[in-house]
Amino acid sequence: MAKLQAGYLFPEIARRRAAHLLKYPDAKIISLGIGDTTEPIPDVITNAMGERAHALSTIDGYSGYGAEQGEKKLRSAIAATYYADLGIEDSDIFVSDGAKCDISRLQVLFGSNVTIAVQDPSYPAYVDSSVIMGQTGLYQQDVQKYGNIEYMRCNPENGFFPDLSTVPRTDIIFFCSPNNPTGAAASRDQLTRLVKFAKDNGSIIVYDSAYAMYISDDSPKSIFEIPGAKEVAVETASFSKYAGFTGVRLGWTVVPKELLFSDGHPVAKDFNRIVCTCFNGASNIAQAGGLACLSPEGLKAMHDVVGFYKENTEIIVDTFTSLGFNVYGAKNAPYVWVHFPGRNSWDVFAEILEKANVVTTPGSGFGPGGEGFVRVSAFGHRDNIIEAARRLKQLYK
Amino acid sequence: MAKLQAGYLFPEIARRRAAHLLKYPDAKIISLGIGDTTEPIPDVITNAMGERAHALSTIDGYSGYGAEQGEKKLRSAIAATYYADLGIEDSDIFVSDGAKCDISRLQVLFGSNVTIAVQDPSYPAYVDSSVIMGQTGLYQQDVQKYGNIEYMRCNPENGFFPDLSTVPRTDIIFFCSPNNPTGAAASRDQLTRLVKFAKDNGSIIVYDSAYAMYISDDSPKSIFEIPGAKEVAVETASFSKYAGFTGVRLGWTVVPKELLFSDGHPVAKDFNRIVCTCFNGASNIAQAGGLACLSPEGLKAMHDVVGFYKENTEIIVDTFTSLGFNVYGAKNAPYVWVHFPGRNSWDVFAEILEKANVVTTPGSGFGPGGEGFVRVSAFGHRDNIIEAARRLKQLYK
Repeated sequence: MAKLQAGYLFPEIARRRAAHLLKYPDAKIISLGIGDTTEPIPDVITNAMGERAHALSTIDGYSGYGAEQGEKKLRSAIAATYYADLGIEDSDIFVSDGAKCDISRLQVLFGSNVTIAVQDPSYPAYVDSSVIMGQTGLYQQDVQKYGNIEYMRCNPENGFFPDLSTVPRTDIIFFCSPNNPTGAAASRDQLTRLVKFAKDNGSIIVYDSAYAMYISDDSPKSIFEIPGAKEVAVETASFSKYAGFTGVRLGWTVVPKELLFSDGHPVAKDFNRIVCTCFNGASNIAQAGGLACLSPEGLKAMHDVVGFYKENTEIIVDTFTSLGFNVYGAKNAPYVWVHFPGRNSWDVFAEILEKANVVTTPGSGFGPGGEGFVRVSAFGHRDNIIEAARRLKQLYK
Repeated sequence: MAKLQAGYLFPEIARRRAAHLLKYPDAKIISLGIGDTTEPIPDVITNAMGERAHALSTIDGYSGYGAEQGEKKLRSAIAATYYADLGIEDSDIFVSDGAKCDISRLQVLFGSNVTIAVQDPSYPAYVDSSVIMGQTGLYQQDVQKYGNIEYMRCNPENGFFPDLSTVPRTDIIFFCSPNNPTGAAASRDQLTRLVKFAKDNGSIIVYDSAYAMYISDDSPKSIFEIPGAKEVAVETASFSKYAGFTGVRLGWTVVPKELLFSDGHPVAKDFNRIVCTCFNGASNIAQAGGLACLSPEGLKAMHDVVGFYKENTEIIVDTFTSLGFNVYGAKNAPYVWVHFPGRNSWDVFAEILEKANVVTTPGSGFGPGGEGFVRVSAFGHRDNIIEAARRLKQLYK
């Protein structure tokens, strides 16, 4: 624990935001920082959760402990909706209270004696949970990296996909696509190379597809679209950014039975044991919501929510582009990755907060490879997005 | 992981129950095994959850990510309801998705280089999560114990409280009171000794008070009733067995700011970091339910639910007592701990399942000190409890 640097990124941003408000109590802050959903959950989904809640007060509708792995119907609906024809079975799906929580349960599974690789930049929970589990060396201030973690640089020069020929073997490879924060989705060809790389090295890929529904082009929405991936990858996903479930808490992890440790022992068997020992299943009310999400009406409603945020993304892209900035991501993710060449990310963060009352996320918070960038989230009410765009135009005109 | 013996206890019981049903498809099984609540959640609580669910589909009622530590109102209500006058502040309360999950997060906090002590018998999640975290040695088949865990024997001879003069120092002491499975609640005098023991040894007590509302006598309901406990203990608790939240998932852990590691660093600071990195808060709908639980009407309703299960407990106690068995627990917990001297717990479990179609829990599943006992849970519909009592009387008459 002592190795961890300062706070986890997002609570740190919340702290700085609060400090700003203390200084300027009347500031009308718009938050495009933490990727927090803002739009109401569609009725068809909340109705199902309300019904489940009320049913719990009846003899027939009451249920106690559910299966730790999730309700059968929901596991089945997830497999059918997202993994049809990919050979993923209901029993490969582990329903959870969210991808971030599953990442930590996976880390508990892997233990302290593994080596990991992460995209640089990437979602900080991979590195921080790795540090907490004792997998890493000390933080090296000069390079802003922890020892014993392989940082796979992803930048505009390499199309945000690491040069695997320079990446040493690790036991575990965390790979997020569409990537948080860069917004880059790996292509089929790139993922095919990644799967081959993992297979050649005997590595396990932890593939985070929490933003897959935002993909607009033909990039794979699941690692399991790649032949052979079932033998090298687990995939973690979430309803958070599709249905506004950031507070409701519901996600899932796919652990294919084809994935084996080097001694031939199935990874799923151990993950199941972790889930049964360290977790008691997602809230049954949230699971009722998840099932409604995957009904025809629910899928349509989620598609509309995603579409709304994608329109926001376009407004943000247009804003920065018109100001002459180079922006990345955005097409396949609700994040715009804006380049401020030569500048310090936290300085840019502070400048935008101080002068435009807009909260962003400093790129360096996602790893040293994020230095010189800020992540602008497209989660926001439309009028806030438009107002933020206006303020940013004023600031950088 | 390879050190773990067979399955986690309760999934193993579910497996044996399923095998029994396969053999006797028409068997009318009554489950008094896993301590799973059966009675509907009171309306006042489900109404609040239904309302929160519906509010999430409105602009004003929507909320995304909540504080990882729980909603302020709920933290405040928990502190006021359960820890009034004990010096526990709102900020010491960490709301969670249940005590079992918090136990694993605490284990992640402690890491692999600690020694632990557990009551023997006790709830298996302490030992199993410890094995998973790599704190233990190999399982020793002859004594049915893991190496490097201190098993504090609790039996009728010592009034179910360990002889601390024979217990070696460990870093962590898991202590569950009222105990699952024995049903024994430690007295004020016993807990005072436990706190002194921890203080003298520089140990941290993880106090599991998930059944505190079942206490009928003057045993403390919180470790923090003992002077000095705030400097040596954390306490984990849950709505599961009070309001039927086993499937809804809501609990909390108290980490007093007075509790310091040996280097003076506050434990709460590190636990907060774990919660922020490995967890994203309990479901907001479940939290709305928790807040309703702590309203005057909710408290009355929970009291009635607990009272109902306590009546069940009396029926079970009377049944076994009338058959000449020695029974323990029951007064302060929804569990009856029945002694079958000289017999193997799993044999008794199998006998009761085979001949009475009643599922119990074999005492040895909770540690070697549980050998010769079975735990009978009082969670059940009244007619099932009465029918189970009838069958047991027939079996053991």
